[in-house]
Amino acid sequence: MNTQHASAFVNGDRVSVIDITDRGLQYGDGVFETLRVHHGKPVWWAPHMERLLDGCHRLQISRLPDIEILRQEADSLLVDYPAGTLKIIITRGNSSSGYGAPADIMPNRVLIAKSGLRHQVKSGQGIVLGVCRQRLSGSQQLSGIKHLNRLEQVLARLECQEQSWDEGVMLDDNERVIEGSMSNLFAWQQGRLLTPRLEQTGINGICRQRIMSLAEKNEIKVEQCELDLDDLQDSDGLFVTNSLIGVWPVIRFINREFEIDKRTRLLQAKLETDICSAG
Amino acid sequence: MNTQHASAFVNGDRVSVIDITDRGLQYGDGVFETLRVHHGKPVWWAPHMERLLDGCHRLQISRLPDIEILRQEADSLLVDYPAGTLKIIITRGNSSSGYGAPADIMPNRVLIAKSGLRHQVKSGQGIVLGVCRQRLSGSQQLSGIKHLNRLEQVLARLECQEQSWDEGVMLDDNERVIEGSMSNLFAWQQGRLLTPRLEQTGINGICRQRIMSLAEKNEIKVEQCELDLDDLQDSDGLFVTNSLIGVWPVIRFINREFEIDKRTRLLQAKLETDICSAG
Repeated sequence: MNTQHASAFVNGDRVSVIDITDRGLQYGDGVFETLRVHHGKPVWWAPHMERLLDGCHRLQISRLPDIEILRQEADSLLVDYPAGTLKIIITRGNSSSGYGAPADIMPNRVLIAKSGLRHQVKSGQGIVLGVCRQRLSGSQQLSGIKHLNRLEQVLARLECQEQSWDEGVMLDDNERVIEGSMSNLFAWQQGRLLTPRLEQTGINGICRQRIMSLAEKNEIKVEQCELDLDDLQDSDGLFVTNSLIGVWPVIRFINREFEIDKRTRLLQAKLETDICSAG
Repeated sequence: MNTQHASAFVNGDRVSVIDITDRGLQYGDGVFETLRVHHGKPVWWAPHMERLLDGCHRLQISRLPDIEILRQEADSLLVDYPAGTLKIIITRGNSSSGYGAPADIMPNRVLIAKSGLRHQVKSGQGIVLGVCRQRLSGSQQLSGIKHLNRLEQVLARLECQEQSWDEGVMLDDNERVIEGSMSNLFAWQQGRLLTPRLEQTGINGICRQRIMSLAEKNEIKVEQCELDLDDLQDSDGLFVTNSLIGVWPVIRFINREFEIDKRTRLLQAKLETDICSAG
């Protein structure tokens, strides 16, 4: 087993640097996926790759990445990192002048494998959820793409660190709840599971999709709807999700304390089973 | 003289690669400036550095870059690139997990010098200006910062390439004209010079500031106001500006043809004098 903390491929080479003319650095011109790794396998590979390809397509990245090559490189890295995370970045490529790109530009691909997950304690104990001042803007053309323009999330996350919140709710300009700074959001209301609609902005997380599917399978009704902060405070329980953390139950939100709902624990357990069978 | 097309410093080293954990690549988490170089000197150095520092401050980048070091490195590069462009990128630094950043993170600095300016012909002949479908979103917290989240401009620029426009007007979600995909915008109206207000979104270009100052000095009244597409079509003339291109007069916009206004030529000439004396 590799003793290093992380290892990477850049365009097929085992290096950890990229050219400074890369448009990911220059403009955030690319997309990424972060996957959980379980027993040496990337979890939920197919939906992650589907979203990656969709993002490349919507950003008009000239040549779509070859998913088979990505998988070979992933498998090669994960031999040494059987439990942890895999990040895949695709950028439009290198170019030397201005926002425009030459027609024959070749995309860059970066894979980074890391060991360890830092989030297990919070899955058990639950988390403190705050509300970020930083808003999500609604560029409809970029909506839903997991692109590399993530300054809104970075600034939101800095607020969470400053306020000692585990996670922070992000609103759009119309005071609608959209998601967490690094997660999707769910609220229990009279036995139903509510989650914000994401047509205008926000990212439809792969873990969000799994939770919705697992809820339906367990005869829990799920609704995508408009939610505001009052709806969250008045709910019977809250949790957040992403591919790395799984389910984090919320035990405090603003001035409200929550018991961790049994159904949250049920979905959390079902999700972990799903992860183990997917990995 | 160096025969290479470009040369760079990364954190003081003469290299052209950066670590893949750099947050510029990961999240577009940083700021940049692009300066014109004349007679081996960066033009309008002081206002560019002022905006760079302001951007770092607003993004809460932990340690502000040392402007003297940046200048030393710039001067060292520009010995070999006396006419062309200098790009400076400051990112929050390297980090290995998630949007949050450790308190002791050290920013990265990248300087890239290049020879040549590609835009001189268009300064003389004038340009075709279109209207981009891509909108500018209005994240007020990020407004005016020349940050590395530039996907909206990239997608707008791709439209310009596709449509064979030299430049494209970008609107906000309220149909207000804000700027060009890579420039600021000016319109002549009954002897006055109008330019869009940039409180909500858009970048207050250094060249825009110089043009406004030069106009006032030449007894041309300048107004920052709300403009829509009709205002542009009904104007007596249009031009766009940025630090690299200087002034590009518009000769066609949608179905309207324009003669190049004498006052546009006057400001263009004054600006070139300003550049020569600044360089």
